[in-house]
Amino acid sequence: MTSTATTLKGQPLDRPTLDSMLRRRLFYTPAFEIYGGVAGLYDYGPPGCSLQANLIDQWRKHFILEEDMLEVDCTVLTPHEVLKTSGHVDKFADWMCKDPKNGEILRADHFVEEVLETRLKGDKEARGQKIEEKEEDPKKKKRKNKGAVEAVKLEDAVVQEYEEILAKIDNYNGQELGELIKKYDMRNAATGVQPSPPVAFNLMFQTAIGPSSNVAGYLRPETAQGQFLNFAKLLEYNQQQMPFASASIGRSYRNEISPRAGLLRVREFLMAEIEHFVDPQGGKKHPRFQDVKDVELVLLNRETQLSGKTNVEKVTIGEAVANGTVDNETLGYFLARIHLFLKKIGVDQSKIRFRQHMANEMAHYAADCWDAELFTSYGWVECVGCADRSAYDLSVHAKKTGAPLIVRQRLDEPITIEEYQVTLDKKKFGPHFKKDGKTVEAALLATSQEKREELSKTLETADSITIEVPGVGDGKATVPKELITVAKQKRVENVREFTPNVIEPSFGIGRILYALMEHSYWTRGTEGVDEARGVLSFPPIVAPTKVLIVPLSNNEQFRPFCQRLSQRLRKMGISSRIDDSSATIGKRYSRNDELGTPLGITVDFQTVQDKSITLRDRDSTKQVRADEDKIVEAIKSVVEGDKTWEDIQAELPAFEGQEVEVAVR
Amino acid sequence: MTSTATTLKGQPLDRPTLDSMLRRRLFYTPAFEIYGGVAGLYDYGPPGCSLQANLIDQWRKHFILEEDMLEVDCTVLTPHEVLKTSGHVDKFADWMCKDPKNGEILRADHFVEEVLETRLKGDKEARGQKIEEKEEDPKKKKRKNKGAVEAVKLEDAVVQEYEEILAKIDNYNGQELGELIKKYDMRNAATGVQPSPPVAFNLMFQTAIGPSSNVAGYLRPETAQGQFLNFAKLLEYNQQQMPFASASIGRSYRNEISPRAGLLRVREFLMAEIEHFVDPQGGKKHPRFQDVKDVELVLLNRETQLSGKTNVEKVTIGEAVANGTVDNETLGYFLARIHLFLKKIGVDQSKIRFRQHMANEMAHYAADCWDAELFTSYGWVECVGCADRSAYDLSVHAKKTGAPLIVRQRLDEPITIEEYQVTLDKKKFGPHFKKDGKTVEAALLATSQEKREELSKTLETADSITIEVPGVGDGKATVPKELITVAKQKRVENVREFTPNVIEPSFGIGRILYALMEHSYWTRGTEGVDEARGVLSFPPIVAPTKVLIVPLSNNEQFRPFCQRLSQRLRKMGISSRIDDSSATIGKRYSRNDELGTPLGITVDFQTVQDKSITLRDRDSTKQVRADEDKIVEAIKSVVEGDKTWEDIQAELPAFEGQEVEVAVR
Repeated sequence: MTSTATTLKGQPLDRPTLDSMLRRRLFYTPAFEIYGGVAGLYDYGPPGCSLQANLIDQWRKHFILEEDMLEVDCTVLTPHEVLKTSGHVDKFADWMCKDPKNGEILRADHFVEEVLETRLKGDKEARGQKIEEKEEDPKKKKRKNKGAVEAVKLEDAVVQEYEEILAKIDNYNGQELGELIKKYDMRNAATGVQPSPPVAFNLMFQTAIGPSSNVAGYLRPETAQGQFLNFAKLLEYNQQQMPFASASIGRSYRNEISPRAGLLRVREFLMAEIEHFVDPQGGKKHPRFQDVKDVELVLLNRETQLSGKTNVEKVTIGEAVANGTVDNETLGYFLARIHLFLKKIGVDQSKIRFRQHMANEMAHYAADCWDAELFTSYGWVECVGCADRSAYDLSVHAKKTGAPLIVRQRLDEPITIEEYQVTLDKKKFGPHFKKDGKTVEAALLATSQEKREELSKTLETADSITIEVPGVGDGKATVPKELITVAKQKRVENVREFTPNVIEPSFGIGRILYALMEHSYWTRGTEGVDEARGVLSFPPIVAPTKVLIVPLSNNEQFRPFCQRLSQRLRKMGISSRIDDSSATIGKRYSRNDELGTPLGITVDFQTVQDKSITLRDRDSTKQVRADEDKIVEAIKSVVEGDKTWEDIQAELPAFEGQEVEVAVR
Repeated sequence: MTSTATTLKGQPLDRPTLDSMLRRRLFYTPAFEIYGGVAGLYDYGPPGCSLQANLIDQWRKHFILEEDMLEVDCTVLTPHEVLKTSGHVDKFADWMCKDPKNGEILRADHFVEEVLETRLKGDKEARGQKIEEKEEDPKKKKRKNKGAVEAVKLEDAVVQEYEEILAKIDNYNGQELGELIKKYDMRNAATGVQPSPPVAFNLMFQTAIGPSSNVAGYLRPETAQGQFLNFAKLLEYNQQQMPFASASIGRSYRNEISPRAGLLRVREFLMAEIEHFVDPQGGKKHPRFQDVKDVELVLLNRETQLSGKTNVEKVTIGEAVANGTVDNETLGYFLARIHLFLKKIGVDQSKIRFRQHMANEMAHYAADCWDAELFTSYGWVECVGCADRSAYDLSVHAKKTGAPLIVRQRLDEPITIEEYQVTLDKKKFGPHFKKDGKTVEAALLATSQEKREELSKTLETADSITIEVPGVGDGKATVPKELITVAKQKRVENVREFTPNVIEPSFGIGRILYALMEHSYWTRGTEGVDEARGVLSFPPIVAPTKVLIVPLSNNEQFRPFCQRLSQRLRKMGISSRIDDSSATIGKRYSRNDELGTPLGITVDFQTVQDKSITLRDRDSTKQVRADEDKIVEAIKSVVEGDKTWEDIQAELPAFEGQEVEVAVR
């Protein structure tokens, strides 16, 4: 593990150079750039599209096909009510304040953090201490106009206060952030004034569905909700068998307050999400856990993080589940499968860790969560979340809609259950509550056993009970004693009903794609040439194009050979590209190293004579020469992962030649 | 060609039965159904997803890979300014009126049409004439609560007026539709009152990007704009070579006033669009036109439509371009390629036609347009549009942003050009127009030669000229004579600059998918069984799953055979599914015929003894039996399209057996 980002070959990674190469080669580009662009929106050009399509293809094979998951493709447009129930309307928000002078919108927690960090730096400077640059956190990317550091010494007690605030910055709500801003007189460096008190800003994009604007809707912030809403249909499709998983690949949207950090924090992004539905009883075992138990992971759990350590040894997932670091087999199984996926697509093994969420940073629906983080020049970046959402989502949607989002399982032996039952006097109940009757009844029937025990006790002494019923009156309903009985009753059950728990591996495809580009990048120094040449050493399975075909020159004789090779490869499902531009062969290869194409074919005058062609390896720049059939076979075996370039070099005669031009261009 | 929809085997197509099967098998399902659903939004379940993924995969191979197109993936969120320039903010709208009594929103043209058609029917009834049901048009799907037909005779002159209105219903604007409603006292059947005057309703979903709501944005109505905005970068990526095409696969959105017609008219849909950039000079030739010139198409051009004919003979595209039916080679090339694609994925050849847009139905940007229409139970449905957008989009964006969305081509021989030039007196011009100076200058420099000739003549006599400059004052700017010279000048050019024209094939993937399901559907009668069994005879390349694996029973002995087969097929990239449920083999095959799985393997006791397995053909229900290697080889050759089932039957021994159960279930 490294504390500053490096290239694939361990060179210090120069992000601006890489970035400019990625844009020049159209891996990505700011969207609407000729209109000045919009923050947080990017387009992918041809190599980016192809890389993305290959990642998705591998993901589909690794997860959906390998594990018979049920893929669904749900709409992005989502009506208000669904996201109200899921909790997103109320809780999916950041705190923002406004600079009253220049109108700048600030994310409150980032602002507090910046001001305090700047003051602490000033203090260190005044004390003559060395200022260490902290690892950059892309979630907290600094604004360009943040205040310059002024050397002002602080009192020791103040330093300690600031440090304590920074340590728990994620825990403050809007009011508390506002109080901090006032108490410490924090001012926007750009204007010298204090920003307004923080207000909640919901991160969902809102729109209206239909002409009468009466269906308020949002662009989904995750693909998960569509999967939950289809749970009953999917269970039926799966012929009632449990456990099973659904999966979805699609775009989601978050209206970030002020997106920075390039491709890592964007407003529109591609996600791949799995919802694995599992019986909460029996310890959440997984039938294929044995297959992965020896996979070794870097696991940074809560305790380790609290102790301030970040370097931890690898452990097998079998051990981690056995000793309780990871809660259960199903969660452990997916952590291992995520690791194997990231390894397969070429993520640097030394730059992956799994970090457990602290209690206060988990999403509102999560019972436990581990992030697969990848190390980049922006620091450790969350690329895959693996959350245990428990029965939260299915329960709230079932409660709201009355749909039975449950599993019914025939019991081998009937069991006797003693439980609190709620019985209503329907004749009186309806007339008493009138139009609210059904809602109040649903709320009563949805109460937990704990709640019913409490209600039962209350009814022993009180004349009525009061329960929360959202949407009725002031959100509460009072039920007179004569309308309701709550008592323990025995019954025999042949069928067990339960709400499944959900383990959710959630992949940010764009972030993985960006990390993969950093991890695959390195520069090749060439003698006699000033600037180092960039290379993207993607594994063949994800490389945007597999083979570059270059004719020595644009002599007409070469054309049929290039065309035939291209067609032959296409028929085998191998993507190739002919570059018959007038640049030197060296320059054309160089361009292609930047595009990450693993193999290159040269067609030259000897080809015309004896039909032999050369094959070049991107990473070593070594070449071999053989007849077309042998070369095509070699390409197939490398692209399909059956052989390495070393194997090919051992089998086919070496060729030295054209690459010399590069040094003298 | 048929006038009512039929199944693959020519049976009358019963849409409700097919629909219920498609929903039961989760090809698709209404989105948010447990919340009551939202009109025009649908989710795809596992087989729908897989079918869609296979269509897209074939599309990518047929177009992007085969023709080296440059794929781009642009954002759905689009700022206001872009769609203002493209014309969508002003013109992408339908007319709607409101029933003042019940608040119902009506699409004005559909309303007028419904009322007049109902009256004409009533007239026919009163005259004792037979009422012919017109072919249903999904664009004009009738509302459920439309008025009942009353037998009221109309005057002959009135009948004629009504018929004339209906014939040109697409030509009326909002005001005219409002006048028709008043003049003929049209009332909403549900309430008996006249709806309010039509107002324009823009079909784009609107949202706000960023926290301060200052960037108004829309969900894109087409993927095209992102491709146009990236034109200069794509040309550079393509090393300045012309012609070239970009392509994009992604969702687009249209806020339909009242969507009906199931999967055909939805608010969120997947599109695949190609923008082929071509030099407008030289007749828009296409280098590969020779490859397709013999492809035969049904072409329904404007003249034929005006003559009232709908049955036309097939002609080769070569002939159609030669005789001018289709304007140029590039347009013709794509019509043929579209046809070949539809054929490849299994669209019924007798249910495809290409219809030329009438002048009044073309989108605001189109110079010419042909739709590939597929015949379904909703009538002829536009599934692919192939428009010549001329230089419209690149020109308007270039004019608005100043970005050079042009091609610069070195001329072999320099040419002398005599053209009107605009020369400004910069010293006086800036101070005169102040802040508007740049905008006015840009507008002057963007004037056409025709306009300049006019300006030059004006300046001979007048003291100033006035030109339109959107965004400045009242949209016009007056330039005094002393600031400007417009005169003919000669210059020698070594480089030719031009704005490419765009040919745009645009595919509605969801519509193609739906038509394909109808075209692949048929029912199999079985003796002794009451209801006919549904079959979806998808070609193997697009079938959601290629092979069903069924063990004879859930005997443990069969499991390892099924698992090994499944893994073996997966390694070959062939998707399979094991059905080890307790249903009879016949029922399991039946379920699978409904899912469109072309091949089925049975593992039985004989398999355990001699490792032989049976292979079943979905369409004929015939079976063969052989050892595993031979069967796997047969599967591979059928799935990859190298052999047909007839070939397999000729090679491997027939097997008669399990299917009998079906008849006696």
